[in-house]
Amino acid sequence: MRERAVILFANDAFYEAFKAADFAAMERLWAKESPVACAHPGWPPLHGREAVMESWQTIFEANGVPADLQCREPRVVPLGPDHAMVLCFEQVGGGMLLATNVFGKEKGEWRLLHHHAGPTRVSADSLSKAWDEEPLQ
Amino acid sequence: MRERAVILFANDAFYEAFKAADFAAMERLWAKESPVACAHPGWPPLHGREAVMESWQTIFEANGVPADLQCREPRVVPLGPDHAMVLCFEQVGGGMLLATNVFGKEKGEWRLLHHHAGPTRVSADSLSKAWDEEPLQ
Repeated sequence: MRERAVILFANDAFYEAFKAADFAAMERLWAKESPVACAHPGWPPLHGREAVMESWQTIFEANGVPADLQCREPRVVPLGPDHAMVLCFEQVGGGMLLATNVFGKEKGEWRLLHHHAGPTRVSADSLSKAWDEEPLQ
Repeated sequence: MRERAVILFANDAFYEAFKAADFAAMERLWAKESPVACAHPGWPPLHGREAVMESWQTIFEANGVPADLQCREPRVVPLGPDHAMVLCFEQVGGGMLLATNVFGKEKGEWRLLHHHAGPTRVSADSLSKAWDEEPLQ
């Protein structure tokens, strides 16, 4: 299904902007018309575009982005014609986080509505076993 | 908006079933027609109704449910007419988790499509400060 590829592309673009600490790209990737929320690991959850974009500015300018951040094994879960989730792992050094990224369509473009990342016990070695045998894509 | 109250009711029903280790209620609360996913803290992520329902059976029968589990400060984020997220805290003893619960409408009923819970650094004391001043509900 072509739409899944487009959603995965939007998810990739999010991690590219994240890794590059590209605030302008991040601003374009988050929804402008729909309510947005974000739960960075270790942060209180944020909602509203202003709070979410401020958090990315802080991460990019003050906290720094881990140079070796990698998005692994993304899976699309469709939520009707205009919304979808991507579940994926975020590998940072030897550590692994699990992310739920929710996307919505605005003017024909898939935009981020929510990002929730937190630690998971799944190791890089077991990634291929982390999903059952009916892949969603 | 009445629909938000109905979504919050579905979210409450989820935590009531969770606390009561009520597998039959949990089966009714999860979507039957749409793809579902679930990321329990410390578990590998699961997708597909069979894997998700098996995980609840394991939690209820083997792991046990924390007696003092409490859902705190739920917030609805609408995702169009047939989908919504609830972000909330899960308080267990002195510990706090953050949950993203995604709901979809099936035959007029809000059903769970995804549950992702993981540790957060927000303490119970700071809960009221965890969301900015424009509440979503």
